[in-house]
Amino acid sequence: MMLRSIQFLGSCSGFFFHRLKLHGNHHGLSLISISSKPSSRTPLLTTSRTHRCFHQFRASSVRSESNPDATSSSSSSSPAFRSAGATRKINFCQSCGGPTKHEIPDGEERERAICTLCGKIAYENPKMVVGCLIEHDNSILLCKRKIHPSYGLWTLPAGYMEIGESATEGAIRETWEEAGAKVKIISPFVQLDIPLIGQTYIIFLAKLMTPHFSPGPESSECRLFALDDIPYESLSFSSMLVTLKLYIEDIKVGKPRFHYGIINKRPGTSPSEIHAYTLDYHMRS
Amino acid sequence: MMLRSIQFLGSCSGFFFHRLKLHGNHHGLSLISISSKPSSRTPLLTTSRTHRCFHQFRASSVRSESNPDATSSSSSSSPAFRSAGATRKINFCQSCGGPTKHEIPDGEERERAICTLCGKIAYENPKMVVGCLIEHDNSILLCKRKIHPSYGLWTLPAGYMEIGESATEGAIRETWEEAGAKVKIISPFVQLDIPLIGQTYIIFLAKLMTPHFSPGPESSECRLFALDDIPYESLSFSSMLVTLKLYIEDIKVGKPRFHYGIINKRPGTSPSEIHAYTLDYHMRS
Repeated sequence: MMLRSIQFLGSCSGFFFHRLKLHGNHHGLSLISISSKPSSRTPLLTTSRTHRCFHQFRASSVRSESNPDATSSSSSSSPAFRSAGATRKINFCQSCGGPTKHEIPDGEERERAICTLCGKIAYENPKMVVGCLIEHDNSILLCKRKIHPSYGLWTLPAGYMEIGESATEGAIRETWEEAGAKVKIISPFVQLDIPLIGQTYIIFLAKLMTPHFSPGPESSECRLFALDDIPYESLSFSSMLVTLKLYIEDIKVGKPRFHYGIINKRPGTSPSEIHAYTLDYHMRS
Repeated sequence: MMLRSIQFLGSCSGFFFHRLKLHGNHHGLSLISISSKPSSRTPLLTTSRTHRCFHQFRASSVRSESNPDATSSSSSSSPAFRSAGATRKINFCQSCGGPTKHEIPDGEERERAICTLCGKIAYENPKMVVGCLIEHDNSILLCKRKIHPSYGLWTLPAGYMEIGESATEGAIRETWEEAGAKVKIISPFVQLDIPLIGQTYIIFLAKLMTPHFSPGPESSECRLFALDDIPYESLSFSSMLVTLKLYIEDIKVGKPRFHYGIINKRPGTSPSEIHAYTLDYHMRS
Protein backbone atom coordinates (compact mmCIF):
# COMPACT_ATOMS: atom_id res chain seq x y z
CA MET A 1 0.00 0.00 0.00
CA MET A 2 1.79 3.03 -1.20
CA LEU A 3 -0.14 5.45 0.95
CA ARG A 4 0.77 3.56 4.05
CA SER A 5 4.43 3.67 3.22
CA ILE A 6 4.30 7.35 2.45
CA GLN A 7 2.56 8.01 5.74
CA PHE A 8 5.12 5.90 7.47
CA LEU A 9 7.91 8.07 6.18
CA GLY A 10 6.03 11.21 6.98
CA SER A 11 5.78 10.28 10.61
CA CYS A 12 9.40 9.31 11.03
CA SER A 13 11.77 11.47 12.94
CA GLY A 14 14.73 12.75 11.01
CA PHE A 15 16.89 10.39 13.02
CA PHE A 16 14.94 7.37 11.94
CA PHE A 17 14.75 8.43 8.33
CA HIS A 18 18.48 8.84 8.30
CA ARG A 19 18.90 5.30 9.57
CA LEU A 20 16.69 4.00 6.80
CA LYS A 21 18.77 5.56 4.06
CA LEU A 22 20.27 2.99 1.79
CA HIS A 23 23.95 2.42 2.04
CA GLY A 24 26.34 -0.14 0.78
CA ASN A 25 27.85 -1.70 3.86
CA HIS A 26 26.48 -5.15 3.42
CA HIS A 27 28.82 -7.85 4.55
CA GLY A 28 27.75 -10.91 2.65
CA LEU A 29 26.51 -13.67 4.88
CA SER A 30 29.31 -13.48 7.39
CA LEU A 31 27.09 -12.26 10.22
CA ILE A 32 24.50 -14.95 9.89
CA SER A 33 24.41 -17.80 12.32
CA ILE A 34 21.76 -20.46 12.36
CA SER A 35 21.21 -22.41 15.53
CA SER A 36 18.63 -24.92 16.61
CA LYS A 37 18.65 -23.67 20.17
CA PRO A 38 18.04 -20.23 21.59
CA SER A 39 21.18 -18.19 21.82
CA SER A 40 22.32 -16.41 24.92
CA ARG A 41 20.60 -13.37 23.47
CA THR A 42 17.16 -14.94 23.76
CA PRO A 43 16.62 -15.56 27.46
CA LEU A 44 12.88 -15.15 26.85
CA LEU A 45 12.79 -18.79 25.96
CA THR A 46 13.27 -19.81 29.53
CA THR A 47 10.05 -20.62 31.28
CA SER A 48 10.69 -19.17 34.69
CA ARG A 49 8.73 -16.18 35.87
CA THR A 50 11.93 -14.17 36.05
CA HIS A 51 11.90 -13.58 32.34
CA ARG A 52 9.05 -11.16 32.53
CA CYS A 53 11.09 -8.11 33.33
CA PHE A 54 13.08 -8.82 30.20
CA HIS A 55 9.85 -9.03 28.26
CA GLN A 56 9.13 -5.51 29.32
CA PHE A 57 12.55 -4.36 28.31
CA ARG A 58 12.10 -5.91 24.92
CA ALA A 59 8.67 -4.44 24.51
CA SER A 60 10.03 -1.02 25.25
CA SER A 61 12.34 -1.17 22.27
CA VAL A 62 9.66 -2.06 19.76
CA ARG A 63 9.71 0.15 16.71
CA SER A 64 8.81 -0.03 13.10
CA GLU A 65 11.08 -1.84 10.71
CA SER A 66 11.85 -1.16 7.13
CA ASN A 67 8.71 -3.01 6.23
CA PRO A 68 6.83 -2.78 2.96
CA ASP A 69 3.65 -1.82 4.73
CA ALA A 70 4.86 -0.25 7.93
CA THR A 71 2.04 1.80 9.37
CA SER A 72 2.28 5.21 10.86
CA SER A 73 0.82 3.79 14.05
CA SER A 74 3.90 1.67 14.57
CA SER A 75 6.56 3.86 13.10
CA SER A 76 7.44 6.19 15.91
CA SER A 77 11.08 5.94 16.72
CA SER A 78 11.69 8.97 18.87
CA PRO A 79 13.96 8.44 21.86
CA ALA A 80 10.99 9.09 24.15
CA PHE A 81 9.05 6.30 22.56
CA ARG A 82 11.88 3.86 22.62
CA SER A 83 12.66 4.48 26.26
CA ALA A 84 9.12 4.55 27.55
CA GLY A 85 7.55 1.52 25.94
CA ALA A 86 5.29 0.72 23.05
CA THR A 87 2.11 1.85 24.81
CA ARG A 88 3.41 5.42 25.21
CA LYS A 89 2.27 6.27 21.71
CA ILE A 90 -1.33 5.63 22.77
CA ASN A 91 -2.39 8.96 24.23
CA PHE A 92 -6.16 8.68 23.91
CA CYS A 93 -8.86 6.01 24.04
CA GLN A 94 -10.13 4.94 20.62
CA SER A 95 -13.55 4.27 22.09
CA CYS A 96 -14.42 7.36 24.17
CA GLY A 97 -11.55 9.76 23.42
CA GLY A 98 -10.46 9.99 27.07
CA PRO A 99 -6.78 10.47 27.91
CA THR A 100 -4.84 7.34 28.80
CA LYS A 101 -2.53 6.49 31.66
CA HIS A 102 0.28 3.97 31.26
CA GLU A 103 0.26 1.40 34.02
CA ILE A 104 0.28 -2.33 34.65
CA PRO A 105 -3.41 -3.26 35.05
CA ASP A 106 -4.53 -5.35 38.02
CA GLY A 107 -4.02 -9.01 37.26
CA GLU A 108 -1.59 -8.37 34.42
CA GLU A 109 2.16 -8.04 34.16
CA ARG A 110 2.74 -5.65 31.30
CA GLU A 111 2.28 -1.93 31.06
CA ARG A 112 -0.77 -1.01 29.00
CA ALA A 113 -2.46 2.21 27.97
CA ILE A 114 -5.61 2.45 30.12
CA CYS A 115 -8.36 5.01 29.51
CA THR A 116 -8.75 7.30 32.52
CA LEU A 117 -12.43 7.87 31.67
CA CYS A 118 -13.92 4.53 30.62
CA GLY A 119 -11.18 2.20 31.87
CA LYS A 120 -10.73 0.44 28.56
CA ILE A 121 -7.32 -1.14 28.01
CA ALA A 122 -5.69 -0.65 24.59
CA TYR A 123 -4.01 -3.95 23.77
CA GLU A 124 -1.38 -4.12 21.07
CA ASN A 125 -0.23 -7.33 19.45
CA PRO A 126 2.33 -8.37 16.84
CA LYS A 127 1.34 -8.12 13.19
CA MET A 128 1.57 -10.80 10.53
CA VAL A 129 3.27 -10.08 7.22
CA VAL A 130 2.23 -12.64 4.61
CA GLY A 131 3.76 -13.31 1.22
CA CYS A 132 4.75 -15.77 -1.50
CA LEU A 133 7.96 -17.41 -2.64
CA ILE A 134 7.00 -18.13 -6.25
CA GLU A 135 8.81 -20.96 -8.01
CA HIS A 136 8.82 -20.95 -11.83
CA ASP A 137 11.20 -22.93 -14.05
CA ASN A 138 13.89 -23.16 -11.37
CA SER A 139 13.64 -19.44 -10.79
CA ILE A 140 12.14 -17.17 -8.11
CA LEU A 141 9.99 -14.09 -8.70
CA LEU A 142 11.22 -10.95 -6.96
CA CYS A 143 9.93 -7.37 -7.00
CA LYS A 144 12.09 -4.24 -6.99
CA ARG A 145 10.59 -1.79 -4.51
CA LYS A 146 9.42 1.56 -5.85
CA ILE A 147 8.59 2.84 -2.37
CA HIS A 148 10.48 3.63 0.79
CA PRO A 149 11.85 2.10 2.87
CA SER A 150 14.28 -0.10 0.95
CA TYR A 151 13.54 1.75 -2.29
CA GLY A 152 15.22 0.02 -5.21
CA LEU A 153 15.89 -3.22 -3.37
CA TRP A 154 14.44 -6.65 -4.14
CA THR A 155 11.76 -8.40 -2.12
CA LEU A 156 9.34 -11.26 -2.23
CA PRO A 157 5.79 -9.97 -2.66
CA ALA A 158 4.46 -9.58 0.89
CA GLY A 159 2.50 -7.26 3.14
CA TYR A 160 0.34 -7.01 6.21
CA MET A 161 -2.42 -9.57 6.61
CA GLU A 162 -5.79 -7.83 6.84
CA ILE A 163 -8.73 -8.42 9.14
CA GLY A 164 -11.20 -10.76 7.44
CA GLU A 165 -8.73 -12.70 5.32
CA SER A 166 -6.57 -15.76 5.91
CA ALA A 167 -2.79 -15.82 5.57
CA THR A 168 -3.04 -17.57 2.19
CA GLU A 169 -5.61 -15.06 0.98
CA GLY A 170 -3.39 -12.21 2.10
CA ALA A 171 -0.32 -13.70 0.42
CA ILE A 172 -2.24 -14.15 -2.85
CA ARG A 173 -3.61 -10.60 -2.62
CA GLU A 174 -0.22 -9.04 -1.98
CA THR A 175 1.30 -10.99 -4.87
CA TRP A 176 -1.40 -9.70 -7.17
CA GLU A 177 -0.99 -6.13 -5.94
CA GLU A 178 2.80 -6.01 -6.05
CA ALA A 179 3.66 -8.35 -8.93
CA GLY A 180 0.45 -8.55 -10.98
CA ALA A 181 0.79 -12.32 -10.75
CA LYS A 182 -1.96 -14.86 -10.18
CA VAL A 183 -0.58 -17.62 -8.03
CA LYS A 184 -1.62 -20.89 -6.49
CA ILE A 185 -0.33 -21.69 -3.02
CA ILE A 186 1.68 -24.92 -2.85
CA SER A 187 2.55 -25.20 0.83
CA PRO A 188 3.45 -23.20 3.93
CA PHE A 189 7.19 -22.59 3.91
CA VAL A 190 8.37 -20.44 6.79
CA GLN A 191 7.32 -18.52 9.88
CA LEU A 192 9.86 -15.93 11.00
CA ASP A 193 9.21 -13.94 14.16
CA ILE A 194 11.00 -10.61 14.64
CA PRO A 195 10.23 -9.77 18.27
CA LEU A 196 12.13 -6.48 18.23
CA ILE A 197 9.65 -4.95 15.82
CA GLY A 198 6.53 -6.95 16.70
CA GLN A 199 6.21 -8.71 13.35
CA THR A 200 5.85 -12.29 12.16
CA TYR A 201 6.57 -13.15 8.54
CA ILE A 202 4.57 -16.05 7.10
CA ILE A 203 5.72 -17.03 3.61
CA PHE A 204 4.11 -19.66 1.38
CA LEU A 205 5.57 -21.51 -1.58
CA ALA A 206 3.49 -20.71 -4.65
CA LYS A 207 3.48 -21.16 -8.41
CA LEU A 208 2.27 -18.96 -11.25
CA MET A 209 -1.17 -19.88 -12.56
CA THR A 210 -0.27 -18.10 -15.81
CA PRO A 211 3.24 -17.08 -16.90
CA HIS A 212 2.34 -13.40 -16.65
CA PHE A 213 3.42 -10.80 -14.14
CA SER A 214 3.96 -7.06 -14.16
CA PRO A 215 4.95 -4.55 -11.50
CA GLY A 216 2.15 -3.03 -9.44
CA PRO A 217 2.16 0.53 -8.05
CA GLU A 218 4.73 -0.33 -5.35
CA SER A 219 7.20 -2.08 -7.68
CA SER A 220 9.42 -0.69 -10.44
CA GLU A 221 10.25 -4.14 -11.82
CA CYS A 222 9.41 -7.80 -11.34
CA ARG A 223 11.86 -10.41 -12.49
CA LEU A 224 12.48 -14.14 -12.34
CA PHE A 225 15.89 -14.90 -10.86
CA ALA A 226 17.64 -18.22 -11.37
CA LEU A 227 18.59 -19.70 -8.02
CA ASP A 228 22.27 -18.95 -8.62
CA ASP A 229 21.54 -15.33 -9.45
CA ILE A 230 19.51 -14.22 -6.43
CA PRO A 231 20.69 -10.68 -5.58
CA TYR A 232 21.64 -11.27 -1.94
CA GLU A 233 23.43 -7.92 -1.74
CA SER A 234 20.35 -6.03 -2.93
CA LEU A 235 17.58 -7.59 -0.86
CA SER A 236 15.25 -5.38 1.13
CA PHE A 237 14.78 -7.10 4.50
CA SER A 238 16.43 -9.69 6.74
CA SER A 239 13.25 -11.76 6.58
CA MET A 240 13.57 -12.07 2.81
CA LEU A 241 17.24 -12.99 3.06
CA VAL A 242 16.51 -15.74 5.60
CA THR A 243 13.57 -17.07 3.57
CA LEU A 244 15.61 -17.31 0.39
CA LYS A 245 18.61 -18.87 2.14
CA LEU A 246 16.45 -21.55 3.76
CA TYR A 247 14.78 -22.26 0.43
CA ILE A 248 18.10 -22.67 -1.40
CA GLU A 249 19.42 -24.93 1.37
CA ASP A 250 16.30 -27.11 1.11
CA ILE A 251 16.47 -27.31 -2.67
CA LYS A 252 20.10 -28.43 -2.50
CA VAL A 253 19.28 -31.42 -0.34
CA GLY A 254 15.81 -32.29 -1.58
CA LYS A 255 12.51 -30.54 -1.41
CA PRO A 256 11.39 -27.59 0.72
CA ARG A 257 10.23 -28.22 4.28
CA PHE A 258 8.46 -25.96 6.75
CA HIS A 259 10.70 -23.77 8.89
CA TYR A 260 10.21 -21.75 12.04
CA GLY A 261 12.73 -19.27 13.40
CA ILE A 262 13.27 -16.05 15.33
CA ILE A 263 15.20 -13.24 13.68
CA ASN A 264 17.09 -11.28 16.30
CA LYS A 265 18.65 -8.17 14.87
CA ARG A 266 22.07 -7.27 16.22
CA PRO A 267 21.70 -4.47 18.77
CA GLY A 268 22.61 -1.09 17.40
CA THR A 269 22.26 -2.00 13.76
CA SER A 270 19.85 -0.24 11.44
CA PRO A 271 16.96 -1.97 9.65
CA SER A 272 18.83 -1.55 6.37
CA GLU A 273 21.68 -3.75 7.61
CA ILE A 274 19.85 -6.87 6.60
CA HIS A 275 22.80 -9.19 7.22
CA ALA A 276 23.20 -8.14 10.87
CA TYR A 277 21.07 -10.75 12.60
CA THR A 278 21.02 -14.22 14.08
CA LEU A 279 18.40 -16.81 13.26
CA ASP A 280 17.55 -18.40 16.60
CA TYR A 281 15.35 -21.32 17.59
CA HIS A 282 15.39 -22.57 14.03
CA MET A 283 13.23 -25.69 13.62
CA ARG A 284 12.32 -27.70 10.53
CA SER A 285 9.13 -29.67 10.34
CA MET B 1 -5.35 -13.10 31.48
CA MET B 2 -8.35 -13.16 33.71
CA LEU B 3 -8.82 -9.41 33.69
CA ARG B 4 -8.96 -9.35 29.94
CA SER B 5 -11.63 -11.99 29.85
CA ILE B 6 -13.70 -10.24 32.49
CA GLN B 7 -13.47 -7.02 30.56
CA PHE B 8 -14.43 -8.83 27.44
CA LEU B 9 -17.61 -10.05 29.02
CA GLY B 10 -18.33 -6.68 30.51
CA SER B 11 -18.29 -5.05 27.13
CA CYS B 12 -20.47 -7.62 25.42
CA SER B 13 -23.99 -6.80 24.45
CA GLY B 14 -26.64 -8.94 26.06
CA PHE B 15 -27.21 -10.54 22.69
CA PHE B 16 -23.63 -11.63 22.34
CA PHE B 17 -23.36 -12.86 25.89
CA HIS B 18 -26.43 -14.96 25.35
CA ARG B 19 -24.82 -16.53 22.31
CA LEU B 20 -21.73 -17.39 24.33
CA LYS B 21 -23.66 -19.30 26.96
CA LEU B 22 -22.72 -22.92 27.06
CA HIS B 23 -25.20 -25.42 25.76
CA GLY B 24 -25.10 -29.03 24.91
CA ASN B 25 -25.90 -29.22 21.25
CA HIS B 26 -22.63 -30.59 20.05
CA HIS B 27 -22.94 -32.91 17.13
CA GLY B 28 -19.82 -35.01 17.25
CA LEU B 29 -17.64 -34.60 14.21
CA SER B 30 -20.36 -34.90 11.63
CA LEU B 31 -20.09 -31.27 10.52
CA ILE B 32 -16.38 -31.33 9.90
CA SER B 33 -15.07 -31.53 6.39
CA ILE B 34 -11.44 -31.34 5.47
CA SER B 35 -10.49 -30.32 1.97
CA SER B 36 -7.20 -29.57 0.31
CA LYS B 37 -8.75 -26.90 -1.88
CA PRO B 38 -10.73 -23.82 -0.96
CA SER B 39 -14.40 -24.53 -0.71
CA SER B 40 -17.05 -22.55 -2.48
CA ARG B 41 -17.35 -20.59 0.73
CA THR B 42 -13.85 -19.15 0.40
CA PRO B 43 -13.91 -17.13 -2.82
CA LEU B 44 -11.22 -14.89 -1.33
CA LEU B 45 -8.71 -17.37 -2.60
CA THR B 46 -9.25 -16.30 -6.16
CA THR B 47 -6.74 -13.76 -7.32
CA SER B 48 -8.91 -11.49 -9.41
CA ARG B 49 -9.61 -8.00 -8.29
CA THR B 50 -13.28 -8.83 -8.03
CA HIS B 51 -12.76 -10.48 -4.69
CA ARG B 52 -12.19 -7.25 -2.91
CA CYS B 53 -15.81 -6.41 -2.32
CA PHE B 54 -16.11 -9.75 -0.59
CA HIS B 55 -13.11 -8.89 1.54
CA GLN B 56 -15.00 -5.89 2.76
CA PHE B 57 -18.07 -7.96 3.46
CA ARG B 58 -16.02 -10.39 5.45
CA ALA B 59 -14.25 -7.68 7.33
CA SER B 60 -17.55 -6.18 8.32
CA SER B 61 -18.57 -9.32 10.12
CA VAL B 62 -15.46 -9.52 12.28
CA ARG B 63 -16.25 -9.98 15.94
CA SER B 64 -14.64 -11.49 18.95
CA GLU B 65 -14.73 -15.21 19.40
CA SER B 66 -15.00 -17.32 22.47
CA ASN B 67 -11.29 -16.85 22.89
CA PRO B 68 -9.30 -17.34 26.07
CA ASP B 69 -7.85 -13.87 25.88
CA ALA B 70 -10.41 -11.96 23.86
CA THR B 71 -9.88 -8.27 24.46
CA SER B 72 -12.48 -5.67 25.01
CA SER B 73 -11.15 -3.82 22.02
CA SER B 74 -12.28 -6.60 19.72
CA SER B 75 -15.35 -7.79 21.50
CA SER B 76 -18.05 -5.45 20.26
CA SER B 77 -20.79 -7.40 18.64
CA SER B 78 -23.65 -4.93 18.52
CA PRO B 79 -25.70 -4.99 15.33
CA ALA B 80 -24.33 -1.54 14.47
CA PHE B 81 -20.79 -2.81 14.68
CA ARG B 82 -21.45 -5.90 12.68
CA SER B 83 -23.15 -4.01 9.89
CA ALA B 84 -20.75 -1.11 9.67
CA GLY B 85 -17.36 -2.78 9.72
CA ALA B 86 -14.58 -3.38 12.17
CA THR B 87 -13.33 0.20 12.02
CA ARG B 88 -16.61 1.63 13.36
CA LYS B 89 -15.55 0.92 16.90
CA ILE B 90 -12.66 3.34 16.48
CA ASN B 91 -14.24 6.67 17.34
CA PHE B 92 -11.15 8.66 18.27
CA CYS B 93 -7.50 8.90 17.28
CA GLN B 94 -5.12 7.22 19.73
CA SER B 95 -2.46 9.77 18.93
CA CYS B 96 -4.17 13.19 19.11
CA GLY B 97 -7.65 12.34 20.41
CA GLY B 98 -9.40 13.79 17.36
CA PRO B 99 -12.67 12.24 16.14
CA THR B 100 -12.38 9.76 13.29
CA LYS B 101 -14.22 9.41 10.00
CA HIS B 102 -14.67 6.02 8.36
CA GLU B 103 -13.66 6.09 4.71
CA ILE B 104 -11.52 4.32 2.17
CA PRO B 105 -8.25 6.32 2.12
CA ASP B 106 -6.78 7.44 -1.18
CA GLY B 107 -4.73 4.64 -2.68
CA GLU B 108 -6.34 1.94 -0.56
CA GLU B 109 -9.32 -0.33 -0.97
CA ARG B 110 -10.61 -0.89 2.54
CA GLU B 111 -12.50 1.35 4.85
CA ARG B 112 -10.32 2.65 7.68
CA ALA B 113 -10.80 4.93 10.64
CA ILE B 114 -9.05 8.19 9.72
CA CYS B 115 -8.44 11.01 12.20
CA THR B 116 -10.21 14.19 11.09
CA LEU B 117 -7.61 16.32 12.88
CA CYS B 118 -4.17 14.80 12.24
CA GLY B 119 -5.07 12.48 9.35
CA LYS B 120 -3.60 9.38 10.98
CA ILE B 121 -5.08 6.09 9.83
CA ALA B 122 -5.86 3.50 12.51
CA TYR B 123 -4.93 0.15 10.99
CA GLU B 124 -6.22 -3.06 12.51
CA ASN B 125 -4.74 -6.46 11.82
CA PRO B 126 -5.46 -10.07 12.81
CA LYS B 127 -4.08 -11.31 16.11
CA MET B 128 -1.99 -14.40 16.75
CA VAL B 129 -3.01 -16.86 19.47
CA VAL B 130 -0.07 -19.09 20.40
CA GLY B 131 -0.08 -22.27 22.45
CA CYS B 132 1.31 -25.73 23.10
CA LEU B 133 0.17 -29.27 22.43
CA ILE B 134 2.11 -31.05 25.17
CA GLU B 135 2.91 -34.73 24.67
CA HIS B 136 3.72 -36.80 27.75
CA ASP B 137 3.65 -40.60 27.96
CA ASN B 138 1.19 -40.95 25.08
CA SER B 139 -1.07 -38.40 26.70
CA ILE B 140 -1.93 -34.74 26.07
CA LEU B 141 -2.11 -31.98 28.69
CA LEU B 142 -5.39 -30.05 28.74
CA CYS B 143 -6.63 -27.25 30.99
CA LYS B 144 -10.21 -26.83 32.22
CA ARG B 145 -11.16 -23.18 31.86
CA LYS B 146 -12.06 -21.31 35.05
CA ILE B 147 -12.99 -18.17 33.11
CA HIS B 148 -15.59 -17.18 30.56
CA PRO B 149 -16.12 -17.76 27.73
CA SER B 150 -16.16 -21.56 27.57
CA TYR B 151 -16.06 -21.82 31.36
CA GLY B 152 -15.62 -25.43 32.42
CA LEU B 153 -14.48 -26.66 29.00
CA TRP B 154 -11.10 -28.10 28.08
CA THR B 155 -8.42 -26.29 26.08
CA LEU B 156 -4.79 -26.46 25.14
CA PRO B 157 -2.84 -23.75 26.96
CA ALA B 158 -2.85 -20.78 24.58
CA GLY B 159 -3.31 -17.02 24.46
CA TYR B 160 -2.50 -13.86 22.57
CA MET B 161 1.09 -13.37 21.46
CA GLU B 162 2.48 -10.17 22.97
CA ILE B 163 4.56 -7.42 21.42
CA GLY B 164 8.24 -8.12 22.08
CA GLU B 165 8.05 -11.90 22.17
CA SER B 166 8.20 -14.64 19.57
CA ALA B 167 5.48 -17.21 18.98
CA THR B 168 7.48 -19.87 20.83
CA GLU B 169 8.12 -17.53 23.73
CA GLY B 170 4.42 -16.71 23.89
CA ALA B 171 3.41 -20.38 23.77
CA ILE B 172 5.85 -21.21 26.57
CA ARG B 173 4.61 -18.25 28.64
CA GLU B 174 0.95 -19.13 28.23
CA THR B 175 1.65 -22.75 29.17
CA TRP B 176 3.37 -21.60 32.33
CA GLU B 177 0.57 -19.17 33.20
CA GLU B 178 -2.33 -21.53 32.52
CA ALA B 179 -0.89 -24.95 33.38
CA GLY B 180 2.08 -24.19 35.63
CA ALA B 181 4.14 -26.39 33.32
CA LYS B 182 7.66 -25.79 32.10
CA VAL B 183 7.88 -27.02 28.52
CA LYS B 184 10.35 -27.37 25.72
CA ILE B 185 9.15 -26.72 22.21
CA ILE B 186 9.62 -29.70 19.88
CA SER B 187 8.34 -28.39 16.55
CA PRO B 188 5.75 -26.14 14.93
CA PHE B 189 2.57 -28.14 14.47
CA VAL B 190 -0.30 -26.10 13.05
CA GLN B 191 -1.37 -22.66 11.83
CA LEU B 192 -5.14 -22.20 11.76
CA ASP B 193 -6.58 -18.95 10.44
CA ILE B 194 -10.10 -17.94 11.49
CA PRO B 195 -10.85 -15.00 9.18
CA LEU B 196 -14.31 -14.36 10.59
CA ILE B 197 -12.88 -13.29 13.91
CA GLY B 198 -9.48 -11.98 12.78
CA GLN B 199 -7.41 -14.59 14.60
CA THR B 200 -4.64 -17.01 13.69
CA TYR B 201 -3.85 -19.92 16.00
CA ILE B 202 -0.23 -21.10 16.02
CA ILE B 203 0.27 -24.26 18.06
CA PHE B 204 3.60 -25.95 18.78
CA LEU B 205 4.29 -29.51 19.86
CA ALA B 206 6.02 -29.44 23.23
CA LYS B 207 7.12 -31.74 26.04
CA LEU B 208 7.27 -31.30 29.79
CA MET B 209 10.71 -30.39 31.11
CA THR B 210 9.64 -31.72 34.51
CA PRO B 211 6.60 -33.92 35.17
CA HIS B 212 4.93 -31.17 37.16
CA PHE B 213 1.94 -29.03 36.32
CA SER B 214 -0.79 -27.28 38.25
CA PRO B 215 -3.68 -25.04 37.25
CA GLY B 216 -2.97 -21.31 37.01
CA PRO B 217 -5.50 -18.57 37.83
CA GLU B 218 -7.48 -19.18 34.63
CA SER B 219 -7.75 -22.97 35.04
CA SER B 220 -9.67 -25.08 37.54
CA GLU B 221 -7.86 -28.27 36.60
CA CYS B 222 -5.04 -29.52 34.38
CA ARG B 223 -5.00 -33.15 33.36
CA LEU B 224 -3.16 -35.55 31.08
CA PHE B 225 -5.58 -37.30 28.72
CA ALA B 226 -4.71 -40.53 26.95
CA LEU B 227 -5.23 -40.12 23.23
CA ASP B 228 -8.32 -42.32 23.32
CA ASP B 229 -9.85 -40.28 26.14
CA ILE B 230 -9.69 -36.75 24.73
CA PRO B 231 -12.97 -35.03 25.71
CA TYR B 232 -14.09 -33.98 22.23
CA GLU B 233 -17.57 -33.10 23.51
CA SER B 234 -16.19 -30.77 26.16
CA LEU B 235 -13.57 -28.80 24.24
CA SER B 236 -13.64 -25.02 24.33
CA PHE B 237 -12.94 -23.86 20.77
CA SER B 238 -13.06 -25.11 17.18
CA SER B 239 -9.33 -24.37 16.88
CA MET B 240 -8.58 -26.80 19.70
CA LEU B 241 -10.81 -29.48 18.20
CA VAL B 242 -9.07 -29.19 14.80
CA THR B 243 -5.61 -29.20 16.37
CA LEU B 244 -6.31 -32.35 18.37
CA LYS B 245 -7.97 -34.13 15.45
CA LEU B 246 -5.02 -33.41 13.14
CA TYR B 247 -2.61 -34.59 15.81
CA ILE B 248 -4.45 -37.87 16.37
CA GLU B 249 -4.62 -38.46 12.60
CA ASP B 250 -0.87 -37.88 12.31
CA ILE B 251 -0.05 -40.16 15.23
CA LYS B 252 -2.11 -42.96 13.70
CA VAL B 253 -0.11 -42.95 10.48
CA GLY B 254 3.32 -41.95 11.75
CA LYS B 255 4.68 -38.80 13.30
CA PRO B 256 3.22 -35.30 13.42
CA ARG B 257 3.71 -33.01 10.44
CA PHE B 258 3.09 -29.27 10.06
CA HIS B 259 -0.43 -28.27 9.04
CA TYR B 260 -2.01 -25.11 7.68
CA GLY B 261 -5.74 -24.54 7.39
CA ILE B 262 -8.57 -22.03 7.46
CA ILE B 263 -11.41 -22.56 9.91
CA ASN B 264 -14.62 -21.19 8.45
CA LYS B 265 -17.44 -21.23 10.96
CA ARG B 266 -20.85 -22.12 9.61
CA PRO B 267 -22.87 -18.91 9.15
CA GLY B 268 -25.36 -18.32 11.91
CA THR B 269 -23.73 -20.61 14.42
CA SER B 270 -22.51 -19.38 17.77
CA PRO B 271 -18.87 -19.54 18.90
CA SER B 272 -19.83 -22.24 21.38
CA GLU B 273 -20.88 -24.58 18.58
CA ILE B 274 -17.35 -25.75 18.09
CA HIS B 275 -18.24 -28.54 15.67
CA ALA B 276 -19.99 -26.21 13.21
CA TYR B 277 -17.14 -25.39 10.84
CA THR B 278 -15.25 -26.51 7.77
CA LEU B 279 -11.49 -26.77 7.60
CA ASP B 280 -10.60 -25.31 4.21
CA TYR B 281 -7.35 -25.05 2.30
CA HIS B 282 -5.80 -27.71 4.50
CA MET B 283 -2.15 -28.34 3.61
CA ARG B 284 0.45 -30.57 5.21
CA SER B 285 4.13 -29.81 4.99
